[in-house]
Amino acid sequence: MTHPSEFSTATLPVAYGDIEAASARLLGQTNQTPILTSRTVNDRTGNQVFFKCENFQRTGSFKFRGAFNALAKLSPNQRQRGVLTYSSGNHAQAVALAGKLLDIPTTIVMPHDAPIVKQDATRGYGAEVILYDRAETTRESLAKQIAQDRDATVIPPYDHADVIAGQGTTAKEVIESVESLDMLLVCCGGGGLLSGCAIAANALAPGCRVIGVEPEKADDATRSFYSKTLQSVHNPETIADGARTPCLGRLTFPLVLHYVHDMVTVSDEALLRTMFFLWERLKIVVEPTGALAAAALLEGMVAVSNARIGVIVTGGNVDLRQTLECLNG
Amino acid sequence: MTHPSEFSTATLPVAYGDIEAASARLLGQTNQTPILTSRTVNDRTGNQVFFKCENFQRTGSFKFRGAFNALAKLSPNQRQRGVLTYSSGNHAQAVALAGKLLDIPTTIVMPHDAPIVKQDATRGYGAEVILYDRAETTRESLAKQIAQDRDATVIPPYDHADVIAGQGTTAKEVIESVESLDMLLVCCGGGGLLSGCAIAANALAPGCRVIGVEPEKADDATRSFYSKTLQSVHNPETIADGARTPCLGRLTFPLVLHYVHDMVTVSDEALLRTMFFLWERLKIVVEPTGALAAAALLEGMVAVSNARIGVIVTGGNVDLRQTLECLNG
Repeated sequence: MTHPSEFSTATLPVAYGDIEAASARLLGQTNQTPILTSRTVNDRTGNQVFFKCENFQRTGSFKFRGAFNALAKLSPNQRQRGVLTYSSGNHAQAVALAGKLLDIPTTIVMPHDAPIVKQDATRGYGAEVILYDRAETTRESLAKQIAQDRDATVIPPYDHADVIAGQGTTAKEVIESVESLDMLLVCCGGGGLLSGCAIAANALAPGCRVIGVEPEKADDATRSFYSKTLQSVHNPETIADGARTPCLGRLTFPLVLHYVHDMVTVSDEALLRTMFFLWERLKIVVEPTGALAAAALLEGMVAVSNARIGVIVTGGNVDLRQTLECLNG
Repeated sequence: MTHPSEFSTATLPVAYGDIEAASARLLGQTNQTPILTSRTVNDRTGNQVFFKCENFQRTGSFKFRGAFNALAKLSPNQRQRGVLTYSSGNHAQAVALAGKLLDIPTTIVMPHDAPIVKQDATRGYGAEVILYDRAETTRESLAKQIAQDRDATVIPPYDHADVIAGQGTTAKEVIESVESLDMLLVCCGGGGLLSGCAIAANALAPGCRVIGVEPEKADDATRSFYSKTLQSVHNPETIADGARTPCLGRLTFPLVLHYVHDMVTVSDEALLRTMFFLWERLKIVVEPTGALAAAALLEGMVAVSNARIGVIVTGGNVDLRQTLECLNG
């Protein structure tokens, strides 16, 4: 077994045992999401492709796996004091639902211009939503302040061992279902899903190459991967809103360096084409970030043939009107 | 076992044995389509709901089941002479693909104003497409003429025993997967799917009530069902294009009377709401006709609670741009 980097696993923050434990914790709470195949995709790419459809996960994305795992591990005392997170997207809803299921009060810090539909969905799960002005404050500092005032536990969207382990159960599930894989394509924002999945693949399918996929305009992780020095982007203008994170985290960076085999990027145009291909041919609703891994394959960013390829479709929370405007635009 | 009507099964054109035989013929050719569940839907309706997703079937709809079964039963001589059908929709693509797989030449008669994308998809499977002017000729007479000239076998879209039996495998598959059902909701155009599914449900889940669902503006089968006399509609203006058929067929009418327990209708507005609900919440792309059965449940057209309900989602071939216009309109 060769590792792509020289780090020793002993110093790394998450191990496969954490993913196994998360998997047991999530049993009966998460959906065992379907794995779809398409003869059209197989013919077009010359591979056997398995789409793991986390857009069918509870709250519409893989984020629920990490959020539930993190909240389920809290002590009775921590549960009583509640949790807090910052996110305008899928992690917000995931934490809100996990809190509701586990009877833990949740507070979500969101920018004041977050789509009303996302604010409502988050409140719908019983979370308290606190809005802030992007121009006046950063979400991290505000969240820290409120958490301190309330003595609440912060559950960050990716740079947290329990979040990473929970998200890694996605790869565990797909590999256990399809038995063997030569390649696994995973999108990368903050790197929580990517590192969790890479740990699982390393344990369950050691020959499997794990490739992270980023938007061209938010290629910080790709540059970090190649330079082995943490790189960042500032408010990148990509339609893949889930991958606009400035940089990999303190935990995810070493994990990505250690377990991931390569990183590639795709353009927003390729992403849009892929999203609509998945809508029209696979009949699944996928959000832009959710189509990143599929785009890498369908747009020829990974040179491979006659291989068994897993593609993680991460989410389906998309504003239909807005997206169809992109189609027409 | 009670039957909803006084017809004797001995005189009926399709029996459950035909569906079993079709099922064997389709093995490895059709997709075993996923059955999706939704906690939101269960909570909202107070039932346990199983969505059988034929939008994931080959060619994007259940029509492939009937087409393949009918073509697979042809004699070597008939195969050589080829088949012909008339359809601007899902049956066209289904026959074209079945012909390609079985090496049978296919000719499809389509109106000259059929969407280019559907013409292209049909040609893409290797079918010859013959266009006609709706104002000048009817598709049935033209098809008959061409079939005669070419000595080809006509495969009508629903009023054909092998088509009905093939389509009925949809219900067989869902009932065998979920084990028991109290109700099965099936859309109704020409009644092929509805009668096939009702035969299967009668054999496999005798206590299960089978309900046909039509658009309000194309309610001919509902009126035929209640009056026990064949009723028709003329070019109804419903967005459910797959249910614009003028009336039940010579074979499907007695089958519907015999095996179906009730018929209900839904408005186009309800259909649109349901289609977008399925897109946004279940993350599946469904065409208007494909959402009929779900609409009956979600819009409260069937009064039932604490029941196990199967809902057949029949197809996902939808023009995204056109649908956006409906959404905005």
